[in-house]
Amino acid sequence: MPTVTMIGGGQLARMTHQAAIALGQCLRVLAASDADPAAQVSADVVIGSHNDLDALREAAAGAVALTFDHEGVPLEHLRALEADGVNVAPPSKALEFAQDKMAMRVRLSELGLPVPAFVDLAGDRAAARDRFITFGDDNGWAVVLKAVRGGYDGRGVWIIDDRDAGLAAFDAAAADASTILMAEQKVPMRRELSAMIGRSPFGQGAAWPVVETVQRHGQCAVVLAPAPDLPAETAETAQQMALSLAAELGVVGVMAMELFETFDGDLLVNELAMRPHNSGHWTMDGAVTSQFEQHLRAVLDYPLGDTAARSEVVVMANILGAQQSPAMSMDERLHHLLARMPDAKVHLYGKGERPERKIGHVNVVGRPGEDVVSVRERAERAATWMSQGVWTDGWDPHGDDVDTAGSGRRSR
Amino acid sequence: MPTVTMIGGGQLARMTHQAAIALGQCLRVLAASDADPAAQVSADVVIGSHNDLDALREAAAGAVALTFDHEGVPLEHLRALEADGVNVAPPSKALEFAQDKMAMRVRLSELGLPVPAFVDLAGDRAAARDRFITFGDDNGWAVVLKAVRGGYDGRGVWIIDDRDAGLAAFDAAAADASTILMAEQKVPMRRELSAMIGRSPFGQGAAWPVVETVQRHGQCAVVLAPAPDLPAETAETAQQMALSLAAELGVVGVMAMELFETFDGDLLVNELAMRPHNSGHWTMDGAVTSQFEQHLRAVLDYPLGDTAARSEVVVMANILGAQQSPAMSMDERLHHLLARMPDAKVHLYGKGERPERKIGHVNVVGRPGEDVVSVRERAERAATWMSQGVWTDGWDPHGDDVDTAGSGRRSR
Repeated sequence: MPTVTMIGGGQLARMTHQAAIALGQCLRVLAASDADPAAQVSADVVIGSHNDLDALREAAAGAVALTFDHEGVPLEHLRALEADGVNVAPPSKALEFAQDKMAMRVRLSELGLPVPAFVDLAGDRAAARDRFITFGDDNGWAVVLKAVRGGYDGRGVWIIDDRDAGLAAFDAAAADASTILMAEQKVPMRRELSAMIGRSPFGQGAAWPVVETVQRHGQCAVVLAPAPDLPAETAETAQQMALSLAAELGVVGVMAMELFETFDGDLLVNELAMRPHNSGHWTMDGAVTSQFEQHLRAVLDYPLGDTAARSEVVVMANILGAQQSPAMSMDERLHHLLARMPDAKVHLYGKGERPERKIGHVNVVGRPGEDVVSVRERAERAATWMSQGVWTDGWDPHGDDVDTAGSGRRSR
Repeated sequence: MPTVTMIGGGQLARMTHQAAIALGQCLRVLAASDADPAAQVSADVVIGSHNDLDALREAAAGAVALTFDHEGVPLEHLRALEADGVNVAPPSKALEFAQDKMAMRVRLSELGLPVPAFVDLAGDRAAARDRFITFGDDNGWAVVLKAVRGGYDGRGVWIIDDRDAGLAAFDAAAADASTILMAEQKVPMRRELSAMIGRSPFGQGAAWPVVETVQRHGQCAVVLAPAPDLPAETAETAQQMALSLAAELGVVGVMAMELFETFDGDLLVNELAMRPHNSGHWTMDGAVTSQFEQHLRAVLDYPLGDTAARSEVVVMANILGAQQSPAMSMDERLHHLLARMPDAKVHLYGKGERPERKIGHVNVVGRPGEDVVSVRERAERAATWMSQGVWTDGWDPHGDDVDTAGSGRRSR
């Protein structure tokens, strides 16, 4: 059976390896260290940096496809690998739009896809600062400043509410000469959605149900599948946008299109990720085909799998490292959770506990007839327990602990 | 997180490793070779023989539990490990009844569990031959001759129809001085069933729905979950028999109790396996908790998971090596299958293709309202294609290609 190489040894590679095993394969991983989540569990690990072309070449040798756990590989290295004849999936010509938020915004605008108003802040810093001030004034300083490259889970993103804070954020970010900036409008919105699809080189596309992503402290906390009360035509529009964009860009693999749903029910594209994505973790237990299996099928140019949900409601909640490490070990917390919720599906990443770090997730697949409030309550209670070692009453559907401001994060 | 060691690097260990990853672990495997199915995919492999106590000790070092992919480890080694303080799960005092068919029959009889009539053929060969003749005559030569140790998937089992064949089989088997024999009645039966349960050291037990196992050429070919048209009280009886036997013997982990259902609807115990089992592969896609996750939960003394099925019908069909290798490679066959059945769940073991060898399986989870005939037809068609590279019309519900004779196989 063929070998697929994944660059990066994080949890996405770890879970892709699980899917590779069923397909008769072993995922080869380029990891920074043998303690990386995927390197802990795969028999085929190359230790090296994704910034080192020699390491990339070593990892690619003999593999039928080379794919990614993250967006960090320099484009010039990917082009060099392609020149070597390596099957880079997604190819560099697609991946550049996932790596460069400004290029993505421009390309999406050209294709007629709806995006928030934005401004390019590259080039001369003084001129960029002036453009930023004009853009901020034009948008009442409800703006988001972003690093064009490398940000996710709230990193490289600054949400601005007024002129002073905006300029302070700009000056701080601009102090690093290597940081290229852009800004966009902070969109008033009802909620964030994600449309995940898979696309093969042959051109087959398949979309999972559109989900709602609940953000807290700048990163994805909870995913509701499908997005509750989303009109069918809006869901179809989101799926079609993702499928047609993937075809336009030549994406290979799975792709998440993160979206804002405005109060008018319109959609705006926020971010793109051309790899397995936090908003697709629910598929591991809740869909016929998981995003990890689908990603492998796509990069291998296998036919894609059935994307139907296995239940009317599935909720994923991230397990985050707590501010204070719980007295109970992770193993003990898991023991208690399994006792309390025999149907909770726990996925742990083998990562050390640090505050706000994603160290695992819990999927709860709704029982027949169970509504989203109940499934969400169970999933959040499970994740909070695993994170903090305290049982809460679960999620309060009338509470308001959620980021409501429009933002421009991208999730791992 | 804790480390569990599994002795044996076959497909059962391979699939247990998949489950270990989700629990934040990496399964340590004692494998004969790094080409073994589990050794291909796990990052923690000890190469050595399960007959070598030093290798067993090396594999056990630092692990919280030591468990099994097969029944082959000598009991005296397990007792030595237990004397070292290793947590052997299931313990040797339980495992001896899975290793020794004669001891199992005697113990089951003592416990009042229904078993076929049997005769002990150990000891002096001439005296044993005489006992075999008497037993054969008493049972009209509808008997099964068995090696007490080591047989599975039809090996070490000789199904007898008349006196001459019986004596020929006895003399051939007895030619190996190390083979200890027994015989039992070949039970007239409607079908074979399997009751799978999990049991933790704490004493928690959990039973999956009872399934029907369809045998061909001496090994399990298809599993229907749940067993069609099985009266609820018969299913409950089977589950209770398995749970109470596991408690009596002190089993830790999952256990399969293979059963005969007679034409009167009575149950007789055929074989026991104290490990993940072919009759439980359907749980990977068809139950809330897979047998592999449950086995880990049990040996770790975690609370057990929900054993409910995810659909009204789930069918597993084994992919067997064909008599003649298909012209198309396995990779090509997989490609075609995925195109034809986007919801088929394929599990490949990384094994070379040899005739009748189990090299993978396909699970088909029934769609809402789909009946067992349809689900079985799809699963068998998928498995036949993967095995032989020919599309059949699938399984013919009116055909009769199934072993109907009672037998005493045990499945891997």
